[in-house]
Amino acid sequence: MVARSFYAYVRKKCRVRLVPKMVQLYSFVAMKLQNLTTSDHASVVSINLFVALLCACIVIGHLLEENRWMNESITALIIGVCTGVVILLLSGGKSSHLLVFSEDLFFIYLLPPIIFNAGFQVKKKQFFRNFITIILFGAVGTLISWAIISFGVIQFFKRLDVGSLDIGDYLAIGAIFAATDSVCTLQVLNQDETPLLYSLVFGEGVVNDATSVVLFNAIQSFDLTRLNTSTALHFIGSFFYLFFASTMLGVVTGLLSAYVIKKLYFGRHSTDREVALMMLMAYLSYILAELFYLSGILTVFFCGIVMSHYTWHNVTESSRVTTKHAFATLSFVAEIFIFLYVGMDALDIEKWQFVSDSPGTSVAVSSILMALVMVGRAAFVFPLSFLSNLAKKSPTERVGIKQQVVIWWSGLMRGAVSMALAYNQFTRSGHTQLRGNAIMITSTITVVLFSTVVFGLMTKPLIRLLLPQPSRTLSDPSTPKSLSVPFLGSAQDSFDFGASDVPRPNSIRALLTTPTHTVHYYWRKFDNAFMRPMFGGRGFVPFVPGSPTERSARQWE
Amino acid sequence: MVARSFYAYVRKKCRVRLVPKMVQLYSFVAMKLQNLTTSDHASVVSINLFVALLCACIVIGHLLEENRWMNESITALIIGVCTGVVILLLSGGKSSHLLVFSEDLFFIYLLPPIIFNAGFQVKKKQFFRNFITIILFGAVGTLISWAIISFGVIQFFKRLDVGSLDIGDYLAIGAIFAATDSVCTLQVLNQDETPLLYSLVFGEGVVNDATSVVLFNAIQSFDLTRLNTSTALHFIGSFFYLFFASTMLGVVTGLLSAYVIKKLYFGRHSTDREVALMMLMAYLSYILAELFYLSGILTVFFCGIVMSHYTWHNVTESSRVTTKHAFATLSFVAEIFIFLYVGMDALDIEKWQFVSDSPGTSVAVSSILMALVMVGRAAFVFPLSFLSNLAKKSPTERVGIKQQVVIWWSGLMRGAVSMALAYNQFTRSGHTQLRGNAIMITSTITVVLFSTVVFGLMTKPLIRLLLPQPSRTLSDPSTPKSLSVPFLGSAQDSFDFGASDVPRPNSIRALLTTPTHTVHYYWRKFDNAFMRPMFGGRGFVPFVPGSPTERSARQWE
Repeated sequence: MVARSFYAYVRKKCRVRLVPKMVQLYSFVAMKLQNLTTSDHASVVSINLFVALLCACIVIGHLLEENRWMNESITALIIGVCTGVVILLLSGGKSSHLLVFSEDLFFIYLLPPIIFNAGFQVKKKQFFRNFITIILFGAVGTLISWAIISFGVIQFFKRLDVGSLDIGDYLAIGAIFAATDSVCTLQVLNQDETPLLYSLVFGEGVVNDATSVVLFNAIQSFDLTRLNTSTALHFIGSFFYLFFASTMLGVVTGLLSAYVIKKLYFGRHSTDREVALMMLMAYLSYILAELFYLSGILTVFFCGIVMSHYTWHNVTESSRVTTKHAFATLSFVAEIFIFLYVGMDALDIEKWQFVSDSPGTSVAVSSILMALVMVGRAAFVFPLSFLSNLAKKSPTERVGIKQQVVIWWSGLMRGAVSMALAYNQFTRSGHTQLRGNAIMITSTITVVLFSTVVFGLMTKPLIRLLLPQPSRTLSDPSTPKSLSVPFLGSAQDSFDFGASDVPRPNSIRALLTTPTHTVHYYWRKFDNAFMRPMFGGRGFVPFVPGSPTERSARQWE
Repeated sequence: MVARSFYAYVRKKCRVRLVPKMVQLYSFVAMKLQNLTTSDHASVVSINLFVALLCACIVIGHLLEENRWMNESITALIIGVCTGVVILLLSGGKSSHLLVFSEDLFFIYLLPPIIFNAGFQVKKKQFFRNFITIILFGAVGTLISWAIISFGVIQFFKRLDVGSLDIGDYLAIGAIFAATDSVCTLQVLNQDETPLLYSLVFGEGVVNDATSVVLFNAIQSFDLTRLNTSTALHFIGSFFYLFFASTMLGVVTGLLSAYVIKKLYFGRHSTDREVALMMLMAYLSYILAELFYLSGILTVFFCGIVMSHYTWHNVTESSRVTTKHAFATLSFVAEIFIFLYVGMDALDIEKWQFVSDSPGTSVAVSSILMALVMVGRAAFVFPLSFLSNLAKKSPTERVGIKQQVVIWWSGLMRGAVSMALAYNQFTRSGHTQLRGNAIMITSTITVVLFSTVVFGLMTKPLIRLLLPQPSRTLSDPSTPKSLSVPFLGSAQDSFDFGASDVPRPNSIRALLTTPTHTVHYYWRKFDNAFMRPMFGGRGFVPFVPGSPTERSARQWE
């Protein structure tokens, strides 16, 4: 984006031939070129620093695990900010960042493994049982939140001296701050302790990220000066198209991977091929979605769900263990990297210089945004929970008021998605030199840092206060979010850790005899009659001597 | 490198202020910038293509596995060339590459996982038993090969109309073509079928890569016009320093990872953290070596060996399975990627246009290089094998003449290391527009393609002809190089697959009672008395209830 507009800028300058300015531009371009290719020692230095810091974050995160307040995101963020300060001091106040925050790095390399892993490890039964509520929260809720934030920003910012922002910028701000940080949410809620809350908040987070990105892209591409019923309908239509098409693409890619691995039966030969193919096809689904301008987040999430339901059962046992842990590890490293990166980038001195002459405005903007985020979220969590509760028959399935508060609270954090969108919107002209842009970027950084650190620190104690779990021991709350593998149980157990959502034979029977959920019952029937024989899945891989199913078949006899 | 020299070029131009040429330069710079940042849709398209082609390579490689001639490298190379042809036709003969061959991509991202995995999976006993021979082949042999190729090139190229090459270029050509492709070698030899040959050829390959890179860097940095005894001694000194320092760095990083994981005992909590830390520390060793201008290849190789000896035994069972397979998979994907990439880059039309007016010269240069590679390798394999055989007592340990032919043959392939070094040497002035540079680049591509495809295709049959293995069944030769896991054996077995070099209790006893190799015996003693209690390792992790060792301890009782 930057390069393209810079290119246009250079072309324009060439046409008018401003010879005296060209020499300046030259050295600027040459400097840019050197920064961009960084084929020399500087890039090696920054890679070194990042890898060493990642190691430090993992070790410190482990040591602080028993701590009641901290989590890995906050640790990484704090380490990032501290490193930024050290670099700033060492370089004599000139520069604090080794890498400029890059949308590409974030959206193309770091986000896909996180979202894919989320889909891969999510408890499918919980997720689909709450599907309607999740969609309600993620899509409708985000729209409500977006509308409130945009409206509030339009009202308040006009009274402040913010700089030149147009209607498109205001709506974009709404979309930027409507994006809940699902990464940070995953860190504070626990799938085993609070399964209902986890599936609601996390499912909402994924759908919400997708909604925000879709909204944001729509705002950037639609002509907002001529807003009428036709454009509004077109907007809604494209939203539904994106939602549906992205999901389908993810499902199709997942099924394709299951079919290919089942047909070719890689297990006979090589675990490496299976693992490689699963990884590559998962990434392919994301990047294909980006190719067709769909929402890669939704696509790779559903691809993860389908892969864990079908493909994962078609591979060898070694591949199962490897994929489970390798995906979780990649996601874990990507998460830490993002927070480290955001922390280090936060101290970029250039942007702060532009707002340092009016600290009052900056603080006001950040506070208003923070307040709007809280109000915007409250405005949909409580009404939509009420609506969702009306549809539920049994009182145990209803979302209580305390749980609603936790849902509201744990979605207040803003993270890397907001950062990336803000950079996209406010650095499009190739620089943050405009006052309005600089203020918006620094305010976004402030909101992200504040919400992640302050709200993040208070989430664990809040959950403990609102939802006391008397049966739990002290060491339990610190179980890391990803996999709690029975480390010592027989190896057989350790292969089941991801399949706790798939009932054992007797519970399958129980489920079939008492069909509590009609949709689930019919899906199960369809799955067993058509999908599993076609694409494999638990207990439906054709029996081949020496195949990975042989053992599991035996153990059921 | 390219950017830096280009920067210098721009600066020079700025100083002399060649205004009319500046506009041309502008559009060139702008184009470059656009190519470099590729933040737009083009990069998404090329990522899509690459990921899809990688999937295709894996599937086709699997289908062709039973084939007597093919291997995965050749498949990827051919698919790459075919894709290049298709793109060339689609773009109307303008461009055939989506990505320009990038040294950085190769040396910073693709090579480390391959070499690390090689160290991690190598059979340590075989490797260290043949250590002297490997060093003899890898270091002394490469120097002999380099001397012969350089000398030959100086003699022959003066008679051909090659363009302006100086003494530094000739010596660099020697280093470029002295680098055996260890990646391709791994594909054609099998660790289980021919363990001695595998460890010799592969070990030589790693040391040889390192030697070539060290030689190459030395040639680029030393002033070769004033060659005397002092510079020669300095050269030899720096060579030994690099060799020793790189190895030590790898060993120290590996031991550090073992110590950290043992002390913190991540296993109690999270498999993800252990896997992440192992991966990051392995990469850290490579990138630290690059930071200190050492040989990253040697460093990461020894780091892999140390990690598999100590660190791997300190982690949970899930982590063991995951790391084994995840490292192998990463290495596998990186290998395929390299060959695909070299194949696609080979058809870059720009370079070929420069040599198309004198096809005779180009063919002559390639043939001479190919012949020199063969002669240079023969000149050290046979004499050094003779020397090495003199030192061996038992006839079974000696390297027979047939095996010598196989060693000679399987080291003839030239691969991505040669490509990367050639690009470094001959595109330093920012373009391949010079006749000599263009000829050298295209000849390197020709030699790489020819040697990989033709020699690669003939290696399997040659080995079958020279070293018949009567006891093997038909499906055996197709076992992939990496891991042949017992797919159906009990889960317990599958955790031992990487430890076949570590003897079982009774064979440990046998080994200790009959110390065949004195060095090995003392190392063993030192390892058991000091190293293992300190850094962990098989059977030496402190017993903690619920720890990964509990089960293995039990099984030994």
